[in-house]
Amino acid sequence: MSGEIEKTVVDKARAAREAARALASATSAAKDRALGAMAEMLSGNAAEILDANAVDVEGARGAGSPAAFVDRLTLTEARVEKTAQGLREVIALPDPVGRVIDGWRRPNGLEIRKVRVPLGVVGIIYESRPDVTVDAAGLCLKAGNAVVLRGGSEAIESNKALVRVIRTAVESAGLPRDAVQLIETTDRAAALKMMKLNGLIDVLIPRGGAALIQRVIENATVPVIETGVGNCHVYVDRAADLAMAREIVFNAKCQRPGVCNAMETLLVHGAVADKFLPEMAKRLTDAGVELRGCERTRELVPQAKEATEEDFHAEFLSLILAVKVVDSLDEAIAHIGKYGTMHSEAIVTKDYGAGRMFVEQVDAAAVYINASTRFTDGYQYGLGAEIGISTQKLHARGPMGLEELTTYKWVVYGDGQVRT
Amino acid sequence: MSGEIEKTVVDKARAAREAARALASATSAAKDRALGAMAEMLSGNAAEILDANAVDVEGARGAGSPAAFVDRLTLTEARVEKTAQGLREVIALPDPVGRVIDGWRRPNGLEIRKVRVPLGVVGIIYESRPDVTVDAAGLCLKAGNAVVLRGGSEAIESNKALVRVIRTAVESAGLPRDAVQLIETTDRAAALKMMKLNGLIDVLIPRGGAALIQRVIENATVPVIETGVGNCHVYVDRAADLAMAREIVFNAKCQRPGVCNAMETLLVHGAVADKFLPEMAKRLTDAGVELRGCERTRELVPQAKEATEEDFHAEFLSLILAVKVVDSLDEAIAHIGKYGTMHSEAIVTKDYGAGRMFVEQVDAAAVYINASTRFTDGYQYGLGAEIGISTQKLHARGPMGLEELTTYKWVVYGDGQVRT
Repeated sequence: MSGEIEKTVVDKARAAREAARALASATSAAKDRALGAMAEMLSGNAAEILDANAVDVEGARGAGSPAAFVDRLTLTEARVEKTAQGLREVIALPDPVGRVIDGWRRPNGLEIRKVRVPLGVVGIIYESRPDVTVDAAGLCLKAGNAVVLRGGSEAIESNKALVRVIRTAVESAGLPRDAVQLIETTDRAAALKMMKLNGLIDVLIPRGGAALIQRVIENATVPVIETGVGNCHVYVDRAADLAMAREIVFNAKCQRPGVCNAMETLLVHGAVADKFLPEMAKRLTDAGVELRGCERTRELVPQAKEATEEDFHAEFLSLILAVKVVDSLDEAIAHIGKYGTMHSEAIVTKDYGAGRMFVEQVDAAAVYINASTRFTDGYQYGLGAEIGISTQKLHARGPMGLEELTTYKWVVYGDGQVRT
Repeated sequence: MSGEIEKTVVDKARAAREAARALASATSAAKDRALGAMAEMLSGNAAEILDANAVDVEGARGAGSPAAFVDRLTLTEARVEKTAQGLREVIALPDPVGRVIDGWRRPNGLEIRKVRVPLGVVGIIYESRPDVTVDAAGLCLKAGNAVVLRGGSEAIESNKALVRVIRTAVESAGLPRDAVQLIETTDRAAALKMMKLNGLIDVLIPRGGAALIQRVIENATVPVIETGVGNCHVYVDRAADLAMAREIVFNAKCQRPGVCNAMETLLVHGAVADKFLPEMAKRLTDAGVELRGCERTRELVPQAKEATEEDFHAEFLSLILAVKVVDSLDEAIAHIGKYGTMHSEAIVTKDYGAGRMFVEQVDAAAVYINASTRFTDGYQYGLGAEIGISTQKLHARGPMGLEELTTYKWVVYGDGQVRT
């Protein structure tokens, strides 16, 4: 049984690799045509997709899944239309493939070129979010990659319907339908096999919660791009503009608490804590935020619960905020170094030196002076759509757009050079 | 016992991480001073280093190690001087850290900067080659990284002596000696632990043979840069300048057969095989090359043995060459796709279209038209010293110099921006 599942996974990855060869030399025009067909056919087949989705939603409800989970799983005509619109936006983005990144001539006459090429076959392991199926397929295709999708089991019927439509659309544009593969078995063995297909899958991108990402990191031998877990901090310096700090803190926590670039811990310099914290705490509490503070915080903010060590490590993804009063910029930086996940970190300060030191010493994908952590996002940076936010240091850091779905190749032109 | 070994590894990695923080903001001048001190002290302490090395060499000889192994293990005054000279050359290279790679202003006034920063802590797992100890420490330091070194057990005394000198030198230049760590226990448990230190080690670079690299890929949860295994091909097209092809083939095989960018399989188009192969084979055989050919090769080259499937997969690293006659450029590309290791691949041709197709469809770190595969090398490309040659697609491909030992950070300057 498990052997059969593994064979299916290998067969799909092999078909993807074959398709990747054709995609690597596909023109931008052909890829954009495929994206356009995908968008059109998703809209045109919305009824079929929604029927399949209804089966998944019913299953999830029957299994007693939480409302937020069911919401992420649910497609509506408007949501299908939104994914189609997303594909149309990808068409408008420049094709990263073929760009000469660098180049020079060597003394012996060799012409050296560093040229952007697709990664090849990208594996995406994600949770039960059908919109990711469309996004990932679209972005991978535009960057010239074949994709092997392995979504959460609760979304399997939706994913099957979506991928059926997508593959038909790709083929209608003259590209190989095998460029988009869905692992249809929901058995764990399939995901495990996928993680070890070195040579067939070039890179794995897990998208989802900390547990999913951890599972991939621990089991994969294929190179992984770690994404998403964000224990982000805002540090209100002693030299902060406190009014500005209040807006940034409120925005970083409350504007959309369920996402990875939302603030999870607030750090406040002791010299401004009494001026800043009580009023800030009231505004947060009024907005429904539960505060969990260190001892000094709780002296100033009676409504705050006691923060545990675990709270400072937590990615709450909800209206909970850990708060700590620190005695110095150094202490703030050390706290972030110990508890942060190298995602997004912000300082609010008017002090040039403090800002400079924070930027230099905080080791994170994105570091902000006087702005909300919520900006770590491909669209907000002006990169266009993103496939995820990398929290590792290899290959890509922060928002990963089309360029991050490519690699490069050295192309060397000679006229008979040999090495002496 | 194993618990104690693991604790030592964790302690060293933790010390490295602490040192990495200081190194990240060290000036180029300070780092260059440290490199200069390393070079000077290596020369000045050559006697001590050679004494330690003599113990290792005696041990390896006593264990009956092959001559080539003992040779790579052996240090001489000249070889120590050569490593010192290598460090002086690294001083001359530009510091990659701090360079603004890209940057722009967003409509909301946010100033976005993509800035090169060190990777942090680099782990190097390598074989019994003491020169790698010095090279790796020097390159990592210049790129602002702390390094955790785990060399082959047969070189342990040499490595201890070298690292003692290097750490003293680093400290004499005002940088933390903990920036260079050597795992002194030769127990396998130490290497295994190192491979799983996510959060303490940012990237692992294995340097050595296929078995070592495979072990790291299979066991590591820390991101790995796969290096070095090269099953490289030269394809002599039907439109090749055969005189040029002879020089390139001879160079790619014979100039230094023991390295990863040497050719291991020769592919020849059937239309020129009878004109090309017999004379080429004679020249190679005269130079001591053992030929292993496909059936058609052996019809033209009687001295060739029969090539097995295994031979086409092999990285011989010696004067052995697999030879295959193909019927088309497509067949050559397919053969490389099946057997190659994505290292270095060359075509010899005068045909514009054939060259273009080869460059586009061959998926390798370096692709050559009319030049020897032997050029895949940081010095030959003009990048300066290299830490290895990546054969994976994430992060870096081909020769990895100082820039590839860095990552980037997004730095965002605002004046109170929040997300709406």
